[in-house]
Amino acid sequence: MTNLTGIAASNGVAIAKAYTLETPDLSFETKKVDDTQAEVKRLNDALDVSKNELEKIKENARKTLGEEHAEIFSAHLLVLSDPELITPMEDKINNESVNAEAALDETANMFITMFEGMDNAYMRERAADIKDVTKRVMAHLLGASFPDPALIDEKVVIIAEDLTPSDTAQLNKQFVQGFTTNIGGRTSHSAIMARSLEIPAVVGTKTVTKDVKDGDMVIVDGIDGHVIINPSDEEITTYEQKQDDFEKQKEIWAQLKDEPTVSKEGEHVELVANIGTPEDVEGVINNGGEGVGLYRTEFLYMGKSDFPTEEEQFDAYKAVLEQMEDKPVVVRTLDIGGDKELSYLDLPDEMNPFLGFRAIRLCLERDDIFRTQLRALLRASTYGNLKIMFPMIATLNEFREAKSILLEEKDKLKEEGHDVSDDIEVGIMVEIPSTAVIARQFAKEVDFFSIGTNDLIQYTMAADRMNEQVSYLYQPYHPAILNLVNNVIEAAHAEGKWAGMCGEMAGDSIAIPILLGLGLDEFSMSATSILPARTQIKDLSKEELASYKDEILSMSTAEEVEAFVREKTDQ
Amino acid sequence: MTNLTGIAASNGVAIAKAYTLETPDLSFETKKVDDTQAEVKRLNDALDVSKNELEKIKENARKTLGEEHAEIFSAHLLVLSDPELITPMEDKINNESVNAEAALDETANMFITMFEGMDNAYMRERAADIKDVTKRVMAHLLGASFPDPALIDEKVVIIAEDLTPSDTAQLNKQFVQGFTTNIGGRTSHSAIMARSLEIPAVVGTKTVTKDVKDGDMVIVDGIDGHVIINPSDEEITTYEQKQDDFEKQKEIWAQLKDEPTVSKEGEHVELVANIGTPEDVEGVINNGGEGVGLYRTEFLYMGKSDFPTEEEQFDAYKAVLEQMEDKPVVVRTLDIGGDKELSYLDLPDEMNPFLGFRAIRLCLERDDIFRTQLRALLRASTYGNLKIMFPMIATLNEFREAKSILLEEKDKLKEEGHDVSDDIEVGIMVEIPSTAVIARQFAKEVDFFSIGTNDLIQYTMAADRMNEQVSYLYQPYHPAILNLVNNVIEAAHAEGKWAGMCGEMAGDSIAIPILLGLGLDEFSMSATSILPARTQIKDLSKEELASYKDEILSMSTAEEVEAFVREKTDQ
Repeated sequence: MTNLTGIAASNGVAIAKAYTLETPDLSFETKKVDDTQAEVKRLNDALDVSKNELEKIKENARKTLGEEHAEIFSAHLLVLSDPELITPMEDKINNESVNAEAALDETANMFITMFEGMDNAYMRERAADIKDVTKRVMAHLLGASFPDPALIDEKVVIIAEDLTPSDTAQLNKQFVQGFTTNIGGRTSHSAIMARSLEIPAVVGTKTVTKDVKDGDMVIVDGIDGHVIINPSDEEITTYEQKQDDFEKQKEIWAQLKDEPTVSKEGEHVELVANIGTPEDVEGVINNGGEGVGLYRTEFLYMGKSDFPTEEEQFDAYKAVLEQMEDKPVVVRTLDIGGDKELSYLDLPDEMNPFLGFRAIRLCLERDDIFRTQLRALLRASTYGNLKIMFPMIATLNEFREAKSILLEEKDKLKEEGHDVSDDIEVGIMVEIPSTAVIARQFAKEVDFFSIGTNDLIQYTMAADRMNEQVSYLYQPYHPAILNLVNNVIEAAHAEGKWAGMCGEMAGDSIAIPILLGLGLDEFSMSATSILPARTQIKDLSKEELASYKDEILSMSTAEEVEAFVREKTDQ
Repeated sequence: MTNLTGIAASNGVAIAKAYTLETPDLSFETKKVDDTQAEVKRLNDALDVSKNELEKIKENARKTLGEEHAEIFSAHLLVLSDPELITPMEDKINNESVNAEAALDETANMFITMFEGMDNAYMRERAADIKDVTKRVMAHLLGASFPDPALIDEKVVIIAEDLTPSDTAQLNKQFVQGFTTNIGGRTSHSAIMARSLEIPAVVGTKTVTKDVKDGDMVIVDGIDGHVIINPSDEEITTYEQKQDDFEKQKEIWAQLKDEPTVSKEGEHVELVANIGTPEDVEGVINNGGEGVGLYRTEFLYMGKSDFPTEEEQFDAYKAVLEQMEDKPVVVRTLDIGGDKELSYLDLPDEMNPFLGFRAIRLCLERDDIFRTQLRALLRASTYGNLKIMFPMIATLNEFREAKSILLEEKDKLKEEGHDVSDDIEVGIMVEIPSTAVIARQFAKEVDFFSIGTNDLIQYTMAADRMNEQVSYLYQPYHPAILNLVNNVIEAAHAEGKWAGMCGEMAGDSIAIPILLGLGLDEFSMSATSILPARTQIKDLSKEELASYKDEILSMSTAEEVEAFVREKTDQ
């Protein structure tokens, strides 16, 4: 019996057999073959099986995540049918009498090396595609089973080093009860996806792939961050109870689904959700979200071969706005660049991508991309309650320039005879320290602030939140963070504007009482965090919490703050 | 006639012939040779000439920069004598009858690929060494001249893409009148070195290597950032006049060499210097520095094959303290990691090194390295007026931990019978936004602050200062930066502590009036900036500037601040 502790990434308890998502051993020996014709057939059979699998996976991705996201698998399928790649493999078998494994490996490696060497993001992506599919074909040649989350047909818990976007795209909620990984934190892609899919998850266990074998029984406790491997009967009983309790807890939370979010004394704050695609809106509604506080539009641009058209974007924005009816929908304009690459947008490699050419910096220079998005947003504005938000604003001039481009496009659209709402609020993400420091100056010109804590914390602490070696510096309760947050809220209120928060911190049970006391107006979080947060806030006195403000803001360390809040709120 | 504009990196005017520091075309054809014995001799001759050159360069580096820095060339010389590398080249010529160029290239590439593939910083450095020396040998084989700053024996202006530390180590001030580069900014290594060597320099011209041919006459105007290529007689006369004026200006500045730094109404502030090695102290004294505000100790660790011993460090610290007599010397403990690698310290590659595992973060984990440095500092403390400063402090707990290690080592040294001063002030760099925001909390525990603006600006603006695409965001006059600086100064004064600044900003003629008005106590800058700054401050009224404080701090943009200061100070 082994227990592991990791980071509780998504609420709930899963109990099921382990399905390890690890590439099998693909080592092989180069051999001479006598019957080259049979060997070519062996290669083609492996290619065919791989193609069939990829078709299924693609179909599954289309259903789960929509047409656009299935395109990555179309690219994989193309590779498997590309005569430029396949013919040299066959030639190699015929001319050199080597086995199919060697022909596959050498040919693929030649292309991978060639494409990777090109200073071009698109070709590098092609290299990654070839690498990906080659592994699958090799597994079939070797008779090894290649793990495929899309093909799972029994209840399992997924065990993996990490889950990529294409892995999570394949997860079938019907069978996948939960997952646990070696790496990652609460803000990593896999954690965000787990919460969006409402699958219990524990990430960052460091060793789970080593400690768990395929078929082991595993408990994933996404509430407290534990993983129990081959549990005793007693443990299973305990965790089944915890599972039941969690289901009951969810029922209690669900009672507040159609209630407003109010503190003990009846003061209202807004609880809204972060979403990535129109498909996520259902979860927002089911979880009683009072709106969308952050619509990340990057997904529209990812896993594609070119920029989305104005029409494609218009359809997506309209769909979200219509479904949310008159509830507020805050759309963040494109935050791409840095670590988020697009295969069709060639950007230079950067030494420090988190401090680089991304988001509004890129949009202001490539205003053709930016204008297309703004036009689509403006045209969709009449279908609901749209608010537009610019990411990574560091100077007032950037905001002024972005807003003037927006107004230009609005005028153009009106001239062209389009309907555009005249009540669109235009605000900014506060995720760069400079903007938090002079929030007072910004508040005179923006309509609202939304504090993006994931980035704000990493810049304020000068610590990459993806870098394990400095992860101890990712401190949401650091008094400097709280002072900056307070500065933003006070600045907004001084000018009669509102201040929200759309980072992970907004849904954190220690942060919520602090933020309520500081007067935050809007809390945007994973849809599944909304009802627990609403339940928590119902029992908190905003007035009492506000009285602790000065004391908390003058504390010296995050540890001191956390201990204080735990004591005052009985956590 | 062409004029280029770049960044004025080091004051003064140089007029001389261009010496382009560019690798010659090293392409060659692989040929069959008949007389392999003659070909082996040709290879060995090229190796010998290269060795002789490297011996000269090494000797020069030893004189200019000291024993330790000459070691990089010892490593290069070792490569050229390594039978593991040379024998395969000779074998190739003998067995395959290829020319020496092909033998050199193929063999070297094999080793480079092998070493680069290893996940080990030391081996990667060896790969770089082989690459470096192979170019030199290839140039000799091809009869091309390989540029060697160490071998220059007439007055020239150096033209280069960029200057590496090993290039600048070789510059002979007797002949090198100035330099100009394609890339870099005021805070890049080459710019800092130019100021330290007092050589006029213009960096970041983007195209100077394309626009200038070897032997062209070139004027480098390091005062205003211009480069004039093949100037007219008239232009030469104009710039000779400017050169004279600058020399006269320097004489005027020199009159203040032994004067205290006082404002118009006689208020004293401290003007001190940034240094990297004991050799830099001479420049500090010659330029009237009132102390050392930042002694960067990294140079002790660089270009070596292992960590410097306690004794080596003790000697260096003692040398600086003794030369500076009773003037303050602020020593910054090791700031390594991130982009500054040591060949003998194997650190994992990081996605965002500027937000990574460096400086105090590394020292607290590798406290063996840290303790050695602290012991050397403590033992040197009785030889002058030592102050110790920790870099990259983001939390109070880091400071507390670092200080407690210092006190532990102090106790141990005393027990061992060493003399240690009891008056060592212990302070921190303020270069991470979190620390600037809660400076009030820090001020209760530290003895002083030194604001490191180079990093503080890049973190506060979330913009890598080395990344050209976001360099427009490196804004020292951004009101957020000024508000943070003000917060640090006010916090220090509230607790009776002092606040200094050791970034580039402290020597900037627009920033100086602002900082004087905010009440900064100590300005640390390149030694050559001290006298101009003292001259400027003599004519500034601190009281008048202090009266603008609230107005400046509530401005919205850096442009607004700059225009205001220019107007008020007639710049």
